[in-house]
Amino acid sequence: MLTMIVIDYIEAKFPLRGEPSAPNAPWPQPQYLNVSSDYIYIDPEFFIVYSNLKNCDIIDKAIERYKPIFFPPKLSIQIPNIFHEDQIFLSVSILVKSKKCHTYPQLHDDQSYSITIENSYGIIFAENVWGALNGLETFSQLLFINENNYLVTNASIYIHDWPRFPYRGILLDTARHFLPVPIIKQHLDAMVYNKFNVFHWHITDDQSWPFVSQKFPQLTEKGAFSSDHVYTPDDVQDIIEHARLRGIRTIPEFDTPGHVAALGRAFPEFLTDCYNGSIAGQAIYGVHAEREILDPTKEEVYKFMNEFLKEVKNIFKYESYIHLGMDEVYPACWMSNPNIQNFLKENNMSNGTDLMTYYSKEILKLMKSIGGKSMVWQDIWDDGVKLPSDTVIEIWKDTSLLSNSPSWSYYLSKATSEGYDAVLAAPFYLNMISYGKYNTPESVMNLEFFKWYNIDLFENFTGDNIARQRLIGGEAALWAEFIDGTNSLSRLWPRVSAVAERLWSSIYVNNPEDAQFRLDVHRCRMLRRGIPAAPILNGYCGSYEVGMKHSMVNEPIFNYIN
Amino acid sequence: MLTMIVIDYIEAKFPLRGEPSAPNAPWPQPQYLNVSSDYIYIDPEFFIVYSNLKNCDIIDKAIERYKPIFFPPKLSIQIPNIFHEDQIFLSVSILVKSKKCHTYPQLHDDQSYSITIENSYGIIFAENVWGALNGLETFSQLLFINENNYLVTNASIYIHDWPRFPYRGILLDTARHFLPVPIIKQHLDAMVYNKFNVFHWHITDDQSWPFVSQKFPQLTEKGAFSSDHVYTPDDVQDIIEHARLRGIRTIPEFDTPGHVAALGRAFPEFLTDCYNGSIAGQAIYGVHAEREILDPTKEEVYKFMNEFLKEVKNIFKYESYIHLGMDEVYPACWMSNPNIQNFLKENNMSNGTDLMTYYSKEILKLMKSIGGKSMVWQDIWDDGVKLPSDTVIEIWKDTSLLSNSPSWSYYLSKATSEGYDAVLAAPFYLNMISYGKYNTPESVMNLEFFKWYNIDLFENFTGDNIARQRLIGGEAALWAEFIDGTNSLSRLWPRVSAVAERLWSSIYVNNPEDAQFRLDVHRCRMLRRGIPAAPILNGYCGSYEVGMKHSMVNEPIFNYIN
Repeated sequence: MLTMIVIDYIEAKFPLRGEPSAPNAPWPQPQYLNVSSDYIYIDPEFFIVYSNLKNCDIIDKAIERYKPIFFPPKLSIQIPNIFHEDQIFLSVSILVKSKKCHTYPQLHDDQSYSITIENSYGIIFAENVWGALNGLETFSQLLFINENNYLVTNASIYIHDWPRFPYRGILLDTARHFLPVPIIKQHLDAMVYNKFNVFHWHITDDQSWPFVSQKFPQLTEKGAFSSDHVYTPDDVQDIIEHARLRGIRTIPEFDTPGHVAALGRAFPEFLTDCYNGSIAGQAIYGVHAEREILDPTKEEVYKFMNEFLKEVKNIFKYESYIHLGMDEVYPACWMSNPNIQNFLKENNMSNGTDLMTYYSKEILKLMKSIGGKSMVWQDIWDDGVKLPSDTVIEIWKDTSLLSNSPSWSYYLSKATSEGYDAVLAAPFYLNMISYGKYNTPESVMNLEFFKWYNIDLFENFTGDNIARQRLIGGEAALWAEFIDGTNSLSRLWPRVSAVAERLWSSIYVNNPEDAQFRLDVHRCRMLRRGIPAAPILNGYCGSYEVGMKHSMVNEPIFNYIN
Repeated sequence: MLTMIVIDYIEAKFPLRGEPSAPNAPWPQPQYLNVSSDYIYIDPEFFIVYSNLKNCDIIDKAIERYKPIFFPPKLSIQIPNIFHEDQIFLSVSILVKSKKCHTYPQLHDDQSYSITIENSYGIIFAENVWGALNGLETFSQLLFINENNYLVTNASIYIHDWPRFPYRGILLDTARHFLPVPIIKQHLDAMVYNKFNVFHWHITDDQSWPFVSQKFPQLTEKGAFSSDHVYTPDDVQDIIEHARLRGIRTIPEFDTPGHVAALGRAFPEFLTDCYNGSIAGQAIYGVHAEREILDPTKEEVYKFMNEFLKEVKNIFKYESYIHLGMDEVYPACWMSNPNIQNFLKENNMSNGTDLMTYYSKEILKLMKSIGGKSMVWQDIWDDGVKLPSDTVIEIWKDTSLLSNSPSWSYYLSKATSEGYDAVLAAPFYLNMISYGKYNTPESVMNLEFFKWYNIDLFENFTGDNIARQRLIGGEAALWAEFIDGTNSLSRLWPRVSAVAERLWSSIYVNNPEDAQFRLDVHRCRMLRRGIPAAPILNGYCGSYEVGMKHSMVNEPIFNYIN
């Protein structure tokens, strides 16, 4: 942490209310936390991390990974040889009760852990490896460098912790702009530092198709921005593995039947010709483009989807779910097309919703046949399509994003009451940004932080207790219209950390005025780990800030570009 | 430039209106530009830059500096040995009419230049070295790498160009957060790429005092965030020199009598004790802090200011102006203090405005005595203080920043009509940010770009022709409440490029729908030069994007951290 003048205002005449944070306060706040006020010293040369699980890659690689986090490169740590033996912290043991080296995290895995530090020894206890990873992360946050450059933690600590919601996701959009693999890996690392556990990879969209398919290479040949702007099979495995080792699920989204202009560059025959009057392939801007949306009347479309989804299922082999998108299908183009009009008549359908129902039923059937479970944006459920009961519905609509929409609470209550698992994304569109400083007559606050932090998922929830269990979590989205490698990390972090605490911590941890101080500490922690997390208050972190000599952002151990 | 699929929409069903840009369209748009449609090839090994000015550091170093810009490292350029001799561009000559190697740019220096390319030879012609630098920058923008990886430009080009306004500034705030020297240098480089020519260095404020004074070392010892968060005398000279060589003036701001909490950590006796009733040093939050604002009744304050400003004048020895701040002095603290109340009575003054007048007159007198000219925020002029006629007034107030304020047009018209030079900052607070995507029924546009681009400085201007001459330019400010090394470059660039074109180009260059395409090209150009400029449209640049193998952001030649 290094010595710190706390700047406790954004403007001098307004104080920041709330409790200043301990330099090693964890984020998100654990469910139960008790620390002593005296400290214990750590000698990097004589500190050992044990585990009762041997030859488990999840644990072994985590221990390796945390070394430079415990002992940050470039920051000088004094060796505390002047201290009495019982003031030296000797080792931490990771005890995994199940003794199983799990391969891949599942939604309802136990994610809890406890940490005990007492008499120079520490224990991280967990039911399984995923809980152990959570414990190791919290443990790493408990260490800090004090004003004498000693690495210390509290002499006695007891933590018992578990997440409020099992699903804590981040959506990255790699289609509007390409996000290079090294940047995605840094996001995954930052997710670990904030206990997010699902990477929702919105991998393709209208703008580009960067996902290399071995069955259909023309998808990237025609649909990627360039041959450099692609994810090769090796890249995809690299990302899945990077995430898996950190306890993060990777759920890929292949959005159809809308958002497919890039797919349409490889397979123009799959798209619907939109009509302006009797002229095919002519846009009516604001209503429809020249060509838009897959044509659900064509056999080849389902053949392609079948082959393609099989390939995807095989690549993301650990993960049960594929996100099918199915959002924002505006029927104007379909309805303008005479072939589709005929198809509707012949099949006793009357409108776009009927056609969408037809398409989605086919695809969901197909998913079942290949052994996959489906996640979808709420739109087809809005349309009244009967979904398999294990479908996860992602709620993104709200009055703040769409006029005439009910609130997200309404949708959440309804979907979970109907028996679906639901994930809330609507209020967490982190690509949206406002200026941080907000003056009221009494204070100046960071508007952005307060806004995200004050959202509670159960606000106005009307479902019963069973429905409550089905609200499995939330997901923050970073849509990439104006985001790429230049700004994605500093735009998302630490703003999205507010969401992290909402999804992990107790409902009673809800004081933003205290939390802003803890988050300020946590953003410095992220900086020390090479994540260029932006400031949320005035002030500074230390000599490792971006642009300074000891900056960690380009440190090879934290930067995968090198 | 490399091959490019133009993504000409933000959403598929809305086109971007406007003319797509040539891959080598310059930014800001020159006053007069005529290019042929055929191209000429450049062989990096046989391309020569001459100058008629020998042994002039400004020119010699610029030629050196532009080499990696002409021939970007890491990007493969094919040698065009297959072409006919008269298709090869052989050399460009820089001809400086004045034959003087100027040391430092002045406000009313001729900044014009012309470029002629004809028959395999190019000429950059300018009155003086500053115009030559502008010409060299535009020339560098005319080169591009085509789809065959040949470096090319138009075979015949004629440009004649000059700025609409002589003062085109960027304010960086290094007090709310520290900006390391390497980051400031990258901003200066980006300023050159956008023809900004004044760096307004808001170096100190309430939050910190990073400027090392040799006369008063306690200022940083007590007022800086830490001993790593300072600008040493060498750092300051390094920045001045970096700017000077690029034709950029560095105007330092030392803001008094408000915004001085950090100064007050070194000299608590200079601050006014604010009173809550009869209790000294007690805040009434929202009204005043515990201590605030210099105490203008104290002799020592003027003694300090005299010594300190002399030191500053000596350090910024080329620059005539020092910015004195003098903004946002809210008299509540002064008026609460019994000593000040007595002083007012004794000197026949009745309120804070009188006291501010007293203080500012003393400081302005002092500035004159040390041979400096003053630049101030508009506040003391608002108060009716009679300023020396060579004072530059910076207009920052507007209804959008302060309720009950007239518009910036009103202030500009008034100040210039009273005979002062004025600079407009009010609508250019680039720290303010909104989400870029804005839907209307007919289109989706980049709101941010349209907003900044559509501001014209003479909007509603009521002054006469002489007054018009005194509106010397504009200044974009990046206040740093939530800005540091993590995000300052990607936050400012290329959003502020919109302001650059407003300040340089003709009033008739005002079509944002065309300009957005040119700016998209220009942001890729900045990326190729190591500036992490953020995207403004969907799409991509090339294999040199941030996070990719050929990224220029960490290329030593463009990154001063290394």
